[in-house]
Amino acid sequence: MAKIDFIRELDKLKTPVWRVIQNYLPDKVPPGHYDMVREYPGRQGKYFRPGLVVLGTQLFGGDPRKAALTAAAMQTSEDWLLIHDDIEDHSEQRRHKPTLNRLHGDELAINAGDALHIIMWKMLGENARLLHNEIGWKIFNKMSEVLLTATEGQYLELQWIREKKVFVSQDEYLDMVKRKTAFYTVIGPLQLGAILAGATDREIRQIEDWGTPFGYAFQIWDDCMNISTPSEKQGKETGGDILEGKRTLILSHLLAHCNQKERRHIQDIYLKPRARKTKRDKDYVLRLMATYGSIDHAKKIALEFGNRSKEIFDRRTAHLKNTKAKETIRAGIDFVTNREQ
Amino acid sequence: MAKIDFIRELDKLKTPVWRVIQNYLPDKVPPGHYDMVREYPGRQGKYFRPGLVVLGTQLFGGDPRKAALTAAAMQTSEDWLLIHDDIEDHSEQRRHKPTLNRLHGDELAINAGDALHIIMWKMLGENARLLHNEIGWKIFNKMSEVLLTATEGQYLELQWIREKKVFVSQDEYLDMVKRKTAFYTVIGPLQLGAILAGATDREIRQIEDWGTPFGYAFQIWDDCMNISTPSEKQGKETGGDILEGKRTLILSHLLAHCNQKERRHIQDIYLKPRARKTKRDKDYVLRLMATYGSIDHAKKIALEFGNRSKEIFDRRTAHLKNTKAKETIRAGIDFVTNREQ
Repeated sequence: MAKIDFIRELDKLKTPVWRVIQNYLPDKVPPGHYDMVREYPGRQGKYFRPGLVVLGTQLFGGDPRKAALTAAAMQTSEDWLLIHDDIEDHSEQRRHKPTLNRLHGDELAINAGDALHIIMWKMLGENARLLHNEIGWKIFNKMSEVLLTATEGQYLELQWIREKKVFVSQDEYLDMVKRKTAFYTVIGPLQLGAILAGATDREIRQIEDWGTPFGYAFQIWDDCMNISTPSEKQGKETGGDILEGKRTLILSHLLAHCNQKERRHIQDIYLKPRARKTKRDKDYVLRLMATYGSIDHAKKIALEFGNRSKEIFDRRTAHLKNTKAKETIRAGIDFVTNREQ
Repeated sequence: MAKIDFIRELDKLKTPVWRVIQNYLPDKVPPGHYDMVREYPGRQGKYFRPGLVVLGTQLFGGDPRKAALTAAAMQTSEDWLLIHDDIEDHSEQRRHKPTLNRLHGDELAINAGDALHIIMWKMLGENARLLHNEIGWKIFNKMSEVLLTATEGQYLELQWIREKKVFVSQDEYLDMVKRKTAFYTVIGPLQLGAILAGATDREIRQIEDWGTPFGYAFQIWDDCMNISTPSEKQGKETGGDILEGKRTLILSHLLAHCNQKERRHIQDIYLKPRARKTKRDKDYVLRLMATYGSIDHAKKIALEFGNRSKEIFDRRTAHLKNTKAKETIRAGIDFVTNREQ
């Protein structure tokens, strides 16, 4: 089989999923409110999560056309979560444009995120009704579980900032990432697809085995890109995570390897509120992360998780037909540790 | 029939509804997160909205026991909305205690509100499934419509602050209140109850006729209490609306009747961010609101809306049996313009 371009595969399913989303985005009074509600959906990310919903369906022999509404809800969940995350993280850029909170203030942005959250459940309710059987409810409940788990991960991450805990161990970091990213970005979407296809409970459960390292690889690589990919490519400010005070494996490695004076300085920088951090602060940390090989270290770990995921994937899916979907998911695992966006 | 104590009637249904809510509030890791999620539900407001769900069911001859889960979801919607509203309004007190954002910061509070929002839809999904027929879906969709409408009202109110529009006309104010309060606090809960009881589409629609003035009376009286009820009684700071810059009928009346110098001073005060407003600023506005009879004016309008609501209520429900629920709802309309909390 020819080498699969994962991003091109994701692109192919954008149009049908976006068409479903558009049907659910109201265009009514007050227009300013609904313009805000439509803003992030209209900026269209990579469609990684809805892509995994559809691929998960196909992996287990299901009909991808039946997955459009679930995939649309998955993408919409990302859009409302991002509106709120961008406020919680004091982010300034999202998908090459200013964040909604920077454009309209935190107050209106929280409210617009809530509206989009309400719309997402409308999709999931109608989805459950259309599938009119146990599968519809399983999807509804899976989404509830996955989203609640994502709020747990977000809590852990925000709480480190609030309690001024700068050094986190790899175990603490991975526990947070498992909730915030692995469940939400990888395991959840794939399980939703598997449920749609009528996979067995065992098959659905086992997605976690390879989805967890897949999710770790995704997040760790994401952290590396934030530090090293030029802003034009990633659509966010390079090193934004340093300004936002994100606790990453890169930071943990750096704190464990730098000297005491540097450690104290780094901690001081991380404990400043975003508004008080200077470009010099950011460059200081960026330079040390490069000097101590902390970025390379994190990339190595991401690649290891990616490889582990592929190994387990091969074993866990050996009983399934060798379809294009199977190859594409495997290409997706490779993709997350090779991408620049 | 003996005079009905509306608050006592609401109190009676607190325990069964709270029991349902408790079943849905997770008690798991990370505990700090779920402590935040449980905080507002545990503070228990008046249970005005779940009360109207149950009374709406009884008014149309339905079984109140079937309404417990819908009522629980209604109450939970108030709790997550309040978590977010308190951030958006920069409120400091809620139900006699500091707001969640003051206790834990905006970031974690937004996230806790999202978790509670997710839990509310879990209730509504299981409710739809338990009622396993059209009624369950009608309730699900009604809640979606009512909540989305509430975000529209919230947008209008926040947008006035953002665009520095201090004077709003009575029509503009009522359009905002119709979305933010009348639909969400009165019409929605009553319609949910009516749907549960199997009321006709016409009956459900006509609730709007008396529910709208009922909702206006509720909000206008609420605005008056905020200005004139002692803090210990209302559980929030007296005059908090002035600090939060809320545009009310009281303010509009004052701006239309004071002299130019006073008007300029009031506008300056309203345009300051909350943190820069002083006690002196608040007292200045409070004194003028009393001097120009603006509070009395608003109370009069609230009473007029209450009377209009009762008249229409009597006509629209003349065909229904004279039950205790009917009397209690009527007492509820009286209650909203006679309460001190």
